[in-house]
Amino acid sequence: MLELPAGKLDKGETLENCAIRELEEEIGYRANKLTFLTNIHPAIGFANENMWLYLAEDLEKTEPILDNDEFIELIPKKLEDAIDMVWSGEITDVKTIIGLLWAERLLKKNR
Amino acid sequence: MLELPAGKLDKGETLENCAIRELEEEIGYRANKLTFLTNIHPAIGFANENMWLYLAEDLEKTEPILDNDEFIELIPKKLEDAIDMVWSGEITDVKTIIGLLWAERLLKKNR
Repeated sequence: MLELPAGKLDKGETLENCAIRELEEEIGYRANKLTFLTNIHPAIGFANENMWLYLAEDLEKTEPILDNDEFIELIPKKLEDAIDMVWSGEITDVKTIIGLLWAERLLKKNR
Repeated sequence: MLELPAGKLDKGETLENCAIRELEEEIGYRANKLTFLTNIHPAIGFANENMWLYLAEDLEKTEPILDNDEFIELIPKKLEDAIDMVWSGEITDVKTIIGLLWAERLLKKNR
């Protein structure tokens, strides 16, 4: 399953700190700029899950620190290629689809 | 929560029949044209849920037949207005966000 870096809030942690921490743990880059994209509800039929999506920019290389139960293969992509993978149906994870489309829209606007 | 019509597959039911049945039960219109949009995974962190999204067109008025446990208020929208509600963050349900963006893209292409 192809998905954007993501994870659960630690107790008392802010949304921004969680996003920065999970990104660094999973891909080994620290984000110096974080932009809120949107809030989504992935599973309204059977769960109260709430997700907040951020665009991470100005990345600085550190080291990934995976949890013992995480097995991740990093597949870096240009945004435009990732967007193609959304529309081709190759990416089916909802937070990844929405995060990529939202980031594309925001970056186009700001250009 | 604002969401597109949706529901669970009955045993042995095809995806298309389920889409047509749920649409009719929930909004009281029978779709004479159904176009597959995409397949999504809403909750990969904790569930195997799989969803298939369709665009329903050529609608014919019948009657909504709600399950006893369904309380639905219909809020008909023009597609362009619904898309605005996606980008404004008013619609947060993932199947609804993705279904609307996909339908918009498909209809633009076919224009």
